[in-house]
Amino acid sequence: MVTIKEVAELAGVSVATVSRFMNNSGYVGKASREKVERAIKLLDFSPNEVARSLYQKKSKLIGLLLPDIANPFFPLVAKGVEDKINESGYSLILGNVQGDVEKEKEYLKIFAQNNVAGVLSAVHGSTKEFHGMPFVLLDRVNEDIEFAVYTDNFHGGELAAQAVSDRQAKHVVIMVGPKDVPSSHERLAGNLKVLNERNIPYQLYQTDTFQFDSAEKTAQHFLDQFPHADSVIASNDVYALAVMKETVKRGIRIPEELQIIGYDDMPFAALAFPGLSTIAQPAYEIGYQAADLLCRHIENKIILKKRIQLPVTLIIRESLREKMENE
Amino acid sequence: MVTIKEVAELAGVSVATVSRFMNNSGYVGKASREKVERAIKLLDFSPNEVARSLYQKKSKLIGLLLPDIANPFFPLVAKGVEDKINESGYSLILGNVQGDVEKEKEYLKIFAQNNVAGVLSAVHGSTKEFHGMPFVLLDRVNEDIEFAVYTDNFHGGELAAQAVSDRQAKHVVIMVGPKDVPSSHERLAGNLKVLNERNIPYQLYQTDTFQFDSAEKTAQHFLDQFPHADSVIASNDVYALAVMKETVKRGIRIPEELQIIGYDDMPFAALAFPGLSTIAQPAYEIGYQAADLLCRHIENKIILKKRIQLPVTLIIRESLREKMENE
Repeated sequence: MVTIKEVAELAGVSVATVSRFMNNSGYVGKASREKVERAIKLLDFSPNEVARSLYQKKSKLIGLLLPDIANPFFPLVAKGVEDKINESGYSLILGNVQGDVEKEKEYLKIFAQNNVAGVLSAVHGSTKEFHGMPFVLLDRVNEDIEFAVYTDNFHGGELAAQAVSDRQAKHVVIMVGPKDVPSSHERLAGNLKVLNERNIPYQLYQTDTFQFDSAEKTAQHFLDQFPHADSVIASNDVYALAVMKETVKRGIRIPEELQIIGYDDMPFAALAFPGLSTIAQPAYEIGYQAADLLCRHIENKIILKKRIQLPVTLIIRESLREKMENE
Repeated sequence: MVTIKEVAELAGVSVATVSRFMNNSGYVGKASREKVERAIKLLDFSPNEVARSLYQKKSKLIGLLLPDIANPFFPLVAKGVEDKINESGYSLILGNVQGDVEKEKEYLKIFAQNNVAGVLSAVHGSTKEFHGMPFVLLDRVNEDIEFAVYTDNFHGGELAAQAVSDRQAKHVVIMVGPKDVPSSHERLAGNLKVLNERNIPYQLYQTDTFQFDSAEKTAQHFLDQFPHADSVIASNDVYALAVMKETVKRGIRIPEELQIIGYDDMPFAALAFPGLSTIAQPAYEIGYQAADLLCRHIENKIILKKRIQLPVTLIIRESLREKMENE
């Protein structure tokens, strides 16, 4: 690999001059500038990131913590993050936490050891140790976080409850997301506000995880417990699809006997049959905006909003009954 | 951050001794060893990866190139990779290539600049420039690659064709994967061997991509072109699900009028209704085994097999007709 010393030698200038030129810091005369440019081109020089990282005390790497990469919501978030940070010249170190607090801490340590320029985290963990690294939280966000990109979970909960209660709901069951994830509470609060206002009876079913592995078993247990439900508000699309599958298996007609709404609008919600109605979260946009915010934060650029709330929308497909005009 | 110099001072030994201790290279006496251990513990010292990387000329990072993280096959591969490399103390830099050759080159350059210890690539690109980094290819593999983990695509193609032709197939359409992906050709060869042996008529439909974005439009175009098909061998599960959805929309019954088989066995294949029959590829295992091979390669450990072929299996669900015993 070509070194900065070789560039300086060929250009006939000092290493310090090449360094100033590369980092755009301090004065470099026009003649020197041209010589350095020519030498860099001739030698096909690309600065070693590790050497630069050690010198500048931060690298061109950004750490991303995800709760579960196998949940199809998060690859889309990662794609948004990656597109944005690439534009700004950064690359991604991935940490897939898998609901393990120790793993989360371990990753943050690894990020720090690699001098990452900043951290994006979609994990709502107990740890607040970011080792002084700039960070932006996304998706699963507490109120006391300074930099965050998230969606309006309360309103999403309202939309889901409105959608089912507009459509002859007499026995609603709400599948509540994991207790330790703040968005679960907000969505539930939105659900309950609407159902209570409209005097619609409901029951709750608590789930422990958003993960895929347990979806089918959960769906079976769920339908065993609530054989007379006519409406399900599911905690996410994976669980909604698992419930749909199990419902059809049991010979219960969707949406006539049981209507179902999910949350997320993953690509597969549209490909299911019947198509899954759901609350759309802009997964790619969450990742992209969070990455943009982090890059601005790192580079001390102007930040108009430190907390960005993105809208959610109701997507109607075949898993909901026809809307009653006079309800 | 604590430095190696501070550890040496507290321990009352030389920096070189601490370095030998940390790298497990050269002699360190018992007394010194104990002093260094105590100092490391007292100072909560963790070696800066960047400094170590510069010194050792390789980092504890591994680069992973994926064709499309939004295709649900690849997050599972990434999960397998991550689980294995974490066990061995490495972390992951992710590169999502998105079918862009320039982006692939750019990522390999970034990996090299960060002194990654090795590269895993599921991208079948035109570039062979790994900048001297150890690498293992996975999933999309050419014959001339030394280190590779892949599945038996030819046999997968045979299994899919056998499955449909065992079940009253009189008009088969094969959806062929992208031309530039070697596995597409191998699967097609497997399909054709079986169909030709059994004298079953077929037509081909060429697709340009495995990506999600175009699946629904492709499915519409596909069914417009082959209104009389009774069996579809799809290029992957995403396309199979898109065809299933469009088929049901058109009032064609699955599997009575049209039976469909996918490829991959993504989690969603099981949750679809009717359940999607498919050829299962062990995505997680591909990632895990490839990472294991790369770690052994990097660390000069014994390698029994440089090219590992993992088995594929036929998964029967409701999207295929009943098997005819006498066919």
